Amino acid sequence: MSQTYNHFNVTSPAPYIAHVEINRPEKLNAFYQDMWMEYAQIFNTLSHSPDVRSIILSGAGPTFTVGLDIHKTSLAFPGSDSARKAWEIRRRMAEFQECISASEKCEKPVICVLHGFSMGLAIDIACATDIRISSADAKFAVKEVDIGLAADIGTLSRLPKIVGSLSWVKDVTLSARIFSAEEAHRVGFVSAVERDKDAAVKKALEMASLISAKSPVAVQGTKAIVNWSVDRTVADGLAYTRVWNAAALQTGDVGEAVGATLGKREARFEKL
Amino acid sequence: MSQTYNHFNVTSPAPYIAHVEINRPEKLNAFYQDMWMEYAQIFNTLSHSPDVRSIILSGAGPTFTVGLDIHKTSLAFPGSDSARKAWEIRRRMAEFQECISASEKCEKPVICVLHGFSMGLAIDIACATDIRISSADAKFAVKEVDIGLAADIGTLSRLPKIVGSLSWVKDVTLSARIFSAEEAHRVGFVSAVERDKDAAVKKALEMASLISAKSPVAVQGTKAIVNWSVDRTVADGLAYTRVWNAAALQTGDVGEAVGATLGKREARFEKL
Amino acid sequence: MSQTYNHFNVTSPAPYIAHVEINRPEKLNAFYQDMWMEYAQIFNTLSHSPDVRSIILSGAGPTFTVGLDIHKTSLAFPGSDSARKAWEIRRRMAEFQECISASEKCEKPVICVLHGFSMGLAIDIACATDIRISSADAKFAVKEVDIGLAADIGTLSRLPKIVGSLSWVKDVTLSARIFSAEEAHRVGFVSAVERDKDAAVKKALEMASLISAKSPVAVQGTKAIVNWSVDRTVADGLAYTRVWNAAALQTGDVGEAVGATLGKREARFEKL
Amino acid sequence: MSQTYNHFNVTSPAPYIAHVEINRPEKLNAFYQDMWMEYAQIFNTLSHSPDVRSIILSGAGPTFTVGLDIHKTSLAFPGSDSARKAWEIRRRMAEFQECISASEKCEKPVICVLHGFSMGLAIDIACATDIRISSADAKFAVKEVDIGLAADIGTLSRLPKIVGSLSWVKDVTLSARIFSAEEAHRVGFVSAVERDKDAAVKKALEMASLISAKSPVAVQGTKAIVNWSVDRTVADGLAYTRVWNAAALQTGDVGEAVGATLGKREARFEKL
Amino acid sequence: MSQTYNHFNVTSPAPYIAHVEINRPEKLNAFYQDMWMEYAQIFNTLSHSPDVRSIILSGAGPTFTVGLDIHKTSLAFPGSDSARKAWEIRRRMAEFQECISASEKCEKPVICVLHGFSMGLAIDIACATDIRISSADAKFAVKEVDIGLAADIGTLSRLPKIVGSLSWVKDVTLSARIFSAEEAHRVGFVSAVERDKDAAVKKALEMASLISAKSPVAVQGTKAIVNWSVDRTVADGLAYTRVWNAAALQTGDVGEAVGATLGKREARFEKL
Amino acid sequence: MSQTYNHFNVTSPAPYIAHVEINRPEKLNAFYQDMWMEYAQIFNTLSHSPDVRSIILSGAGPTFTVGLDIHKTSLAFPGSDSARKAWEIRRRMAEFQECISASEKCEKPVICVLHGFSMGLAIDIACATDIRISSADAKFAVKEVDIGLAADIGTLSRLPKIVGSLSWVKDVTLSARIFSAEEAHRVGFVSAVERDKDAAVKKALEMASLISAKSPVAVQGTKAIVNWSVDRTVADGLAYTRVWNAAALQTGDVGEAVGATLGKREARFEKL
Repeated sequence: MSQTYNHFNVTSPAPYIAHVEINRPEKLNAFYQDMWMEYAQIFNTLSHSPDVRSIILSGAGPTFTVGLDIHKTSLAFPGSDSARKAWEIRRRMAEFQECISASEKCEKPVICVLHGFSMGLAIDIACATDIRISSADAKFAVKEVDIGLAADIGTLSRLPKIVGSLSWVKDVTLSARIFSAEEAHRVGFVSAVERDKDAAVKKALEMASLISAKSPVAVQGTKAIVNWSVDRTVADGLAYTRVWNAAALQTGDVGEAVGATLGKREARFEKL
Repeated sequence: MSQTYNHFNVTSPAPYIAHVEINRPEKLNAFYQDMWMEYAQIFNTLSHSPDVRSIILSGAGPTFTVGLDIHKTSLAFPGSDSARKAWEIRRRMAEFQECISASEKCEKPVICVLHGFSMGLAIDIACATDIRISSADAKFAVKEVDIGLAADIGTLSRLPKIVGSLSWVKDVTLSARIFSAEEAHRVGFVSAVERDKDAAVKKALEMASLISAKSPVAVQGTKAIVNWSVDRTVADGLAYTRVWNAAALQTGDVGEAVGATLGKREARFEKL
Repeated sequence: MSQTYNHFNVTSPAPYIAHVEINRPEKLNAFYQDMWMEYAQIFNTLSHSPDVRSIILSGAGPTFTVGLDIHKTSLAFPGSDSARKAWEIRRRMAEFQECISASEKCEKPVICVLHGFSMGLAIDIACATDIRISSADAKFAVKEVDIGLAADIGTLSRLPKIVGSLSWVKDVTLSARIFSAEEAHRVGFVSAVERDKDAAVKKALEMASLISAKSPVAVQGTKAIVNWSVDRTVADGLAYTRVWNAAALQTGDVGEAVGATLGKREARFEKL
Repeated sequence: MSQTYNHFNVTSPAPYIAHVEINRPEKLNAFYQDMWMEYAQIFNTLSHSPDVRSIILSGAGPTFTVGLDIHKTSLAFPGSDSARKAWEIRRRMAEFQECISASEKCEKPVICVLHGFSMGLAIDIACATDIRISSADAKFAVKEVDIGLAADIGTLSRLPKIVGSLSWVKDVTLSARIFSAEEAHRVGFVSAVERDKDAAVKKALEMASLISAKSPVAVQGTKAIVNWSVDRTVADGLAYTRVWNAAALQTGDVGEAVGATLGKREARFEKL
Repeated sequence: MSQTYNHFNVTSPAPYIAHVEINRPEKLNAFYQDMWMEYAQIFNTLSHSPDVRSIILSGAGPTFTVGLDIHKTSLAFPGSDSARKAWEIRRRMAEFQECISASEKCEKPVICVLHGFSMGLAIDIACATDIRISSADAKFAVKEVDIGLAADIGTLSRLPKIVGSLSWVKDVTLSARIFSAEEAHRVGFVSAVERDKDAAVKKALEMASLISAKSPVAVQGTKAIVNWSVDRTVADGLAYTRVWNAAALQTGDVGEAVGATLGKREARFEKL
Repeated sequence: MSQTYNHFNVTSPAPYIAHVEINRPEKLNAFYQDMWMEYAQIFNTLSHSPDVRSIILSGAGPTFTVGLDIHKTSLAFPGSDSARKAWEIRRRMAEFQECISASEKCEKPVICVLHGFSMGLAIDIACATDIRISSADAKFAVKEVDIGLAADIGTLSRLPKIVGSLSWVKDVTLSARIFSAEEAHRVGFVSAVERDKDAAVKKALEMASLISAKSPVAVQGTKAIVNWSVDRTVADGLAYTRVWNAAALQTGDVGEAVGATLGKREARFEKL
């Protein structure tokens, strides 16, 4: 994690924890192509880093991100006819989607701290993380319809699986209206709300510490199996669990965890 | 929309908004075959009408609908043996399901205002709309088990995907008990509750106005992509989004929407 | 139901209702292999018993179950290399998963009363039932990561489909933290909370009585169709419903139910 | 079947058999919109006609069909921008696909006799039937790429599931090259080749007679279950079969079939 | 394998090979309930037997099996109405399907030798094995429609995935016509045809010997992954392969296999 | 395409055609990690190159490839316990699978010319291309079980969908036996066999020329839709086709193709 990034601060506030901070506060952390390329690079690196067991994501300054930087993102596409433009759009969108999906594909759990304005791309990003918590002042909006777009970087595909009211999903995606942290909590989009950004980051750090103290084999297996199961039948979920755990159960972590509990000592797990 | 219907009032309370009202209040808006055939015809027509961008559905009188009119619906099926009766049942049920699914297949968002008694078929109908709001006095029940039936026109297939508690889904579908607007809101079946029917219709009109003022390309794409994604893996949701937006992003609406925002004027979008 | 079981009390507190009680209170109802084998046998038997129309599941004593009895469950697996051990693990896990899934496969609805400590396997078990209610004092935890395991008997595959906040699912499965009945209710894991265990069992009995008084054809069809639909597209849910009901609608229960309602008398349904 | 059609001859060459003949030989049976609308109407009618148990499809004159009549099919689409044109294209294509799918959705088996030129839409049509046989002189081509199109009325979705060589599927769909009846037989696209058109129609009539003499419950169930299973897992295929047959096995046809076999007499089945 | 069976001979013609012979030749190996229960028991036992690495299935006498013994199989189902009969049918069919699926679920490859009459249930059985070979004189038929049934024990769900011509599948399942070994080979239903039954059994023994000499980890993994992949997307096939092989690649068999090849000696693998 | 590669020759034998030649003939084109990384890079580049419309893949020298270079591929995996080794295996396998899948993901059709020894990884590679042709002397084997492995780079997931006999798939994957070009053709693995390697490359060039002369919009859409449809239901295939073609049909290529046909001139299409 010693690498320096242009648009992100990546720090290690505690052992086995990485903190990724979107760092373009002067532009309210608005994203453009270089940024999402770097974002993917960071999560791909953390995914395999043995020194990382959980990750916190937040924004520098009061705002998480206002989404796409329209001034640095062209919505004109080259191509001599509409079909050729369509090819270009699909290619760019595939790249963009893949970058934002990096936190989902990342083997380690990602805790997203939403604060201040969290709009448009902010929701796409948050939907591709594992645990979402927010500050009480956060203002959310699935903003895309307001600029003539269906949200295309993951919100529309993931949000219906993340929260428990499809009526609410359609309400906020069709109206682009702002919703509060309280409302986000009520529908299950975030699972905790803290007083302000600092408290939310502190809470995330506590959660990350708790998770990082556990067997990384168990933690990463849990993330992988839940993500698989969300999209498939219960039968296929159970089958995948069996096959996954056929190797995972052979870890020394089980003995270490049980031993530590019985010995009332802290467990120490090998890196992963 | 100049057409006259036998069992429904279809009006345009504001530009680009259609209001479909079930109009058989003397029978508490109970449905029989002619009605669901006409219901499908209305939504199929509105789906392609360039003058409609969002739709409100409610019932004439205090009751949304008490469901099936048992007096006008035969549950006897012709056929010389049980297998042949089964063929007849499947055919009728396929037709019935397809009619009620018309609001789901409709390209424009449908806001369902539930009020008064909303039972049996009322739930099937509501599940096939996009946004559900209710009056505080609404009384809901998945009533079918009380007449010896598993709800067959969509409630059992859609409800588990619409709300966030499968325990609750089983509770209300197995017990046929009445539940209140407050409970419906808590589990996410409706996303808003208003004081009474008038307030709920007014709220729906505000929502419809908000939606109709936006790019119809963005709005209809959002409905289509969410409906697709609910039923499929995230990966297939993202793929469909890319392909859908490859054409949709070529709309003039993006420029119009951005221009209007920057120019602080109302956006005007071409018909769709 | 006259059979005697080693680890369970199976009684009939009222006509058509079976009450299955985990009966190893001296060990806080902790499970070992014999027990889950017997558990499956019980539900397989009740599934086809014409005298049973709904089932209550609870634990003897204050605790529902603290989960796996680690002292009687070996986590050592025979095999001359890691691959051969993996075969052994998969086989055992398949058997274990199939036993716990027996309540899901059971044709009759199962109401699970959670009380006291409900941890680890308790959650796997509860996820495979239909309706979950709890006492106010219940303490829940998806405990597996604390012993180095990803929960493998169904929690990770079923929980995301049962509740309405994936952020919460990841929170509790990754942290193994204890959560309360109130929290379980808020996210939809349980659909009712009663004052204490006695009140919760009483509530379950009322629900079971209500369900058992209805047409068993309608009730069992409802369970079957909801379980099918949760895992599949709406279109496949509707298709299955049609085919299922093509036989089910030919029941005499419809006439009996309608007749009883009109005649203001109690309906009496044939056994199933 | 007494109805008269504009572009098709629909006759009954033998009891319980319908013969649908594309009847625009002066234009080599090329299709335009009116024709596919009528095509759907015919199969929808035959699907529920109790006097029909199997259907033969062929073309009047030496040619089955050369496909789309380009002179009567506009490839210009109204719309003020590319997105709006895309909406129009999707709507038209949905209607077109649904019409050609009518033979697949038709409850009775459809035997397609391919002869002479069978190109473009001919392949889409044939793919949506049940049994394909051809005359030795038939000339096939998936012609669409030659006019700048990916075949969009079903060939690309169905062909990979109908034949046994994906390499061959890509070869013929990417090259648009002509292939012979012999080649079509070798890869399994057709399951029989006859000397000439007359022999092929005669063969189809024999097959239709054989099928029509059997229990319509068994025959139609077989078509329905195979079509379901092709698209789903084996487990879902078996589940659907159980539910389907739970009603179908209650037919009197089983007794009649067994009785006729034992009594060495012809079975007579009730209409369906 | 020392156990004695009532209706099957189970022998070990060579190390690591089991030969299961249907043993009711006086009735042309026709099946009734006791037999398919025992059939499942045998394959479940062989599945986990460390002394078995491949299995041959054939019939005693000239006939493989003529299918269901109608004289010992009741097609009357108890139940006070059609719905209740349907429940009974589904239950019986589920049990029957599960028994016949035992060879598919069996971890070891099953080579089915088809000979003489191989009709009705014979096809269901064969479809649930891995490799099908036949004698030149074998006569096949998907016979069910001739007694008023859609084949319900797996043929209709598996056959479309096993062979390469859906037109042929519909032809033989709708007509119940007899087809020859040559035809079965041409469409890919069997992958080898031998002169007569003895030659076919000999061939099966050679194949079984070849397979049994290889790493059982590799062989059983191959069967498991192919069976999974047939029913799922390529992406899900690749994911399952990765997770499966994460344990399987840790076998000592790789070293042994490579060492034996380099040392030009026979490899010896640990039991599994 | 001016880039130089270490292990591949990439040339342009004709306009719009790229020829990728595996270039390690002194080692019979055996692969190691650097090579599959470069392989992916090549296909990713060609995928978006406007100067390429179809691609030929073959091997330098008489042998296509004998598969994995075991001397340069470690099958030892770091990790302090079996679970940690499993993580390492999954990561490496994911990378390897993704590299070999590059030809499938490539937007342009890939014609694979198989010749000489084509074993192990050769089959994985071939399965991920679009059209497979071979020389008469080619010798094929799914060789992995012979070194203790289930084939893990795609053969087991793709082969069952590519050919028309699952019995044959199990035969060759379980036995690792060599099969000939003639057999490969009979089962549909390759769709053409030529006299020798030169003739096969010549044939591939003719096919590539034919494809490259057509509308790239139509050609690339055809590949994309077939690949999507193979893995999904017919209904989802049709839906995807509609959405894809909503943009693709707006190409100028349709007019150009039709105009060229009518004018009996060669069509010229814009780059893509």
